[in-house]
Amino acid sequence: MIKVTVWNEYRHEKQSEQVRAVYPEGIHGQLKSFLQEEFEVTTATLDEPEHGLTEEVLASTDVLVWWGHIAHGEVQDEIVNRVHQRVLEGMGLIVLHSGHMSKIFMKLMGTSCDLKWREADEVCRMWNVNPSHPITEGVGEFIYLEKEEMYGEHFDIPAPDELLFVNWYQGGEVFRGGCTFRRGNGKVFYFQPGHETYPSYYNEQVQRVIQNAVKWCRPTTNAYPKYGYHQPLEQISKGEA
Amino acid sequence: MIKVTVWNEYRHEKQSEQVRAVYPEGIHGQLKSFLQEEFEVTTATLDEPEHGLTEEVLASTDVLVWWGHIAHGEVQDEIVNRVHQRVLEGMGLIVLHSGHMSKIFMKLMGTSCDLKWREADEVCRMWNVNPSHPITEGVGEFIYLEKEEMYGEHFDIPAPDELLFVNWYQGGEVFRGGCTFRRGNGKVFYFQPGHETYPSYYNEQVQRVIQNAVKWCRPTTNAYPKYGYHQPLEQISKGEA
Amino acid sequence: MIKVTVWNEYRHEKQSEQVRAVYPEGIHGQLKSFLQEEFEVTTATLDEPEHGLTEEVLASTDVLVWWGHIAHGEVQDEIVNRVHQRVLEGMGLIVLHSGHMSKIFMKLMGTSCDLKWREADEVCRMWNVNPSHPITEGVGEFIYLEKEEMYGEHFDIPAPDELLFVNWYQGGEVFRGGCTFRRGNGKVFYFQPGHETYPSYYNEQVQRVIQNAVKWCRPTTNAYPKYGYHQPLEQISKGEA
Amino acid sequence: MIKVTVWNEYRHEKQSEQVRAVYPEGIHGQLKSFLQEEFEVTTATLDEPEHGLTEEVLASTDVLVWWGHIAHGEVQDEIVNRVHQRVLEGMGLIVLHSGHMSKIFMKLMGTSCDLKWREADEVCRMWNVNPSHPITEGVGEFIYLEKEEMYGEHFDIPAPDELLFVNWYQGGEVFRGGCTFRRGNGKVFYFQPGHETYPSYYNEQVQRVIQNAVKWCRPTTNAYPKYGYHQPLEQISKGEA
Repeated sequence: MIKVTVWNEYRHEKQSEQVRAVYPEGIHGQLKSFLQEEFEVTTATLDEPEHGLTEEVLASTDVLVWWGHIAHGEVQDEIVNRVHQRVLEGMGLIVLHSGHMSKIFMKLMGTSCDLKWREADEVCRMWNVNPSHPITEGVGEFIYLEKEEMYGEHFDIPAPDELLFVNWYQGGEVFRGGCTFRRGNGKVFYFQPGHETYPSYYNEQVQRVIQNAVKWCRPTTNAYPKYGYHQPLEQISKGEA
Repeated sequence: MIKVTVWNEYRHEKQSEQVRAVYPEGIHGQLKSFLQEEFEVTTATLDEPEHGLTEEVLASTDVLVWWGHIAHGEVQDEIVNRVHQRVLEGMGLIVLHSGHMSKIFMKLMGTSCDLKWREADEVCRMWNVNPSHPITEGVGEFIYLEKEEMYGEHFDIPAPDELLFVNWYQGGEVFRGGCTFRRGNGKVFYFQPGHETYPSYYNEQVQRVIQNAVKWCRPTTNAYPKYGYHQPLEQISKGEA
Repeated sequence: MIKVTVWNEYRHEKQSEQVRAVYPEGIHGQLKSFLQEEFEVTTATLDEPEHGLTEEVLASTDVLVWWGHIAHGEVQDEIVNRVHQRVLEGMGLIVLHSGHMSKIFMKLMGTSCDLKWREADEVCRMWNVNPSHPITEGVGEFIYLEKEEMYGEHFDIPAPDELLFVNWYQGGEVFRGGCTFRRGNGKVFYFQPGHETYPSYYNEQVQRVIQNAVKWCRPTTNAYPKYGYHQPLEQISKGEA
Repeated sequence: MIKVTVWNEYRHEKQSEQVRAVYPEGIHGQLKSFLQEEFEVTTATLDEPEHGLTEEVLASTDVLVWWGHIAHGEVQDEIVNRVHQRVLEGMGLIVLHSGHMSKIFMKLMGTSCDLKWREADEVCRMWNVNPSHPITEGVGEFIYLEKEEMYGEHFDIPAPDELLFVNWYQGGEVFRGGCTFRRGNGKVFYFQPGHETYPSYYNEQVQRVIQNAVKWCRPTTNAYPKYGYHQPLEQISKGEA
């Protein structure tokens, strides 16, 4: 059974009644609730020791789900490096919504990961541009969200390995809202929905995508490749043909 | 100087006063008018012998621009194969608007190239998602078209090598409206604007993109690679290291 | 259970004792033998009516495996178009070795699919350049084949969506020997090993890759997207913000 | 005229007579010698103040060429961040040979950038797998280097946006030896040749590729995109169609 760790900053929920009303168990609680149907799920949050991401926790995590927003700067560099190393070794990583500016996502992308944004209660329609991909399995032609925060292009990421969703917003913007990236032995999926004041993680299509993504992100059993000095496998002879 | 051949079906202009009012010299005439500032431009149309695309014409064409719509089926397979071979040898190809269902584009893509569409005088905003690409040079953050035909996802093309523009439409759809593809020794650019009843080819940003694309599409001087039986370049010895 | 149809030209085995000695049950027989451990497998061959690929057979096929070589030209265009349509609808396709010049692969790629080749009993080492991909699962750093036909660059395919293996040959050539492509709702995998006089399909790593590829290629349940005229999902109002 | 800054660590040349014999003017001197035919070229080295990469120098650099090896760790993080920011703003970056482990390349890639290596005076043949790309212009089917350091897969980089060269080595390895990446508004090219004891930068094909790459890497005039809060461009009405 795939082992999932859901990481949440868990600050908005403590500070805002409005957010708490939407996510009374925290965003991590809601994510856990629909992931635990299929996977072995634990949670971790910013204010735990080592942010809940000890060596032991990460060593037994197949896929890490990441939600953060107002406290990206408080995540310790040492822990970011630890997560980064685990991704390169093969751990899957699903970065949600405002996690686009988390230290771990920026470190993996190598770009600013910046974008345009607006909170205006507007419709978001996420078009499926890759219907053959296992992450879009069962989703159909688009995901409809009555209200979502606008995230608009230009989104400063490397060209994704695979583009799965393109978002439409009422205000006139578009956004690459579902993207895959491979880094080292690990797989990364970025998914746009999840503003803290909107109930996006109760949406069944959104849930389905995150469930699909966990399966897609799971590590292979391939060992981390060997690097450094390499003995020749063939005789290095000088004769030309 | 780059040699451009602008190919136009040239039927709408003859059949419809409305289209003729927009493009009195034909769509090819308008495309030629802004391309000839920088390039050596000739035109060819469906009803000419061999559709104006003789062996001689193609042999001296660096970049072919293609506009077609209601008469895709009338383009002879022999001419399609001839154009296809030239693309593989290195000739650039720019496919505009409804050319997405032309025989030559479908043959190069290997898919149905189908899409959703609607004519409803709606705003199209083409967001630049690749500002470092020479084809988007000088275009800025987006191209604004007051009226354009809606082309919507799913667009049944292979994942483009590079995605340059994503279109937003008032009716709620998005579209990958600027895409590059490499085929053989040749380069292909698909660009969405250009419904026959709208003045999109008078738009300076649209013109700039097509001009940029001609430069990007020009052939390299690399010879067509050699295929078939190949003598070993190194001695095939059996000794292991 | 995934339904696999293994298609084989089945001519070499009838014409050559040398090939028959390697594959007494035909290449399709050997492919079936290791695929049937996990999947529901049937076979089809060129000389059967409709090449064994009737509408009924294809309708119940999740993944089609294709081996052909000396009789590509005998495959009827009608059957090629039928297979092509099924791939666009979602059927997976695994193209092996000399299938690179089959009509179906060329039609899906849009290029000549040509390459350099040589039969010289030389070592082929297929390096895994994508260890996080499910198709390379369990394969390790490389696949070692004591003897395989040399296939060398330039390989005239579109840039693959994902590059999985790069082959090294004793004679001095390299080859992109494991490549994925998405076409329509379907997924395609090209894999180089399998010259008819060498026992490559008895190699456990090669078998593992083909088994992995069947799983990767299986269709999603997403319906084939709707194309054509599309009603607006949002009110098309003319008011600017 | 494109402004190029060639940056060299410039340590091997001072420490080793063998290297000095190959590059008496330093590696940067040799790179400058063939780039200044077409471009405005200056040089900068590690031991200059701010490594020669002041704000002023970078502000007037269109394309930065980077060679480093034994002193990656001595490059100050502040300068690395400055170069990184300039790449995101549009400056081109060409990373040569052992620069694969430079701080700036690792920061832009987000991976370990590690690989296999061996110094054994062996033949390197770099196959051109993208003959339509302007960086391979004029190079033909392959680049032949009588002696080059072996760099072997797995090379821990993100999947390149474009793969241009695949290297073959006598000892049995392959390597993705020419790769492009887009980061922010900037373009990055990695190119394998250039071990300090071999005369690779005197090879005319190698020189041609680096010259081509400078042109390909030059910035567009597109402004750095605007990020942050964004006013709606369209009226956000709630009416459904």
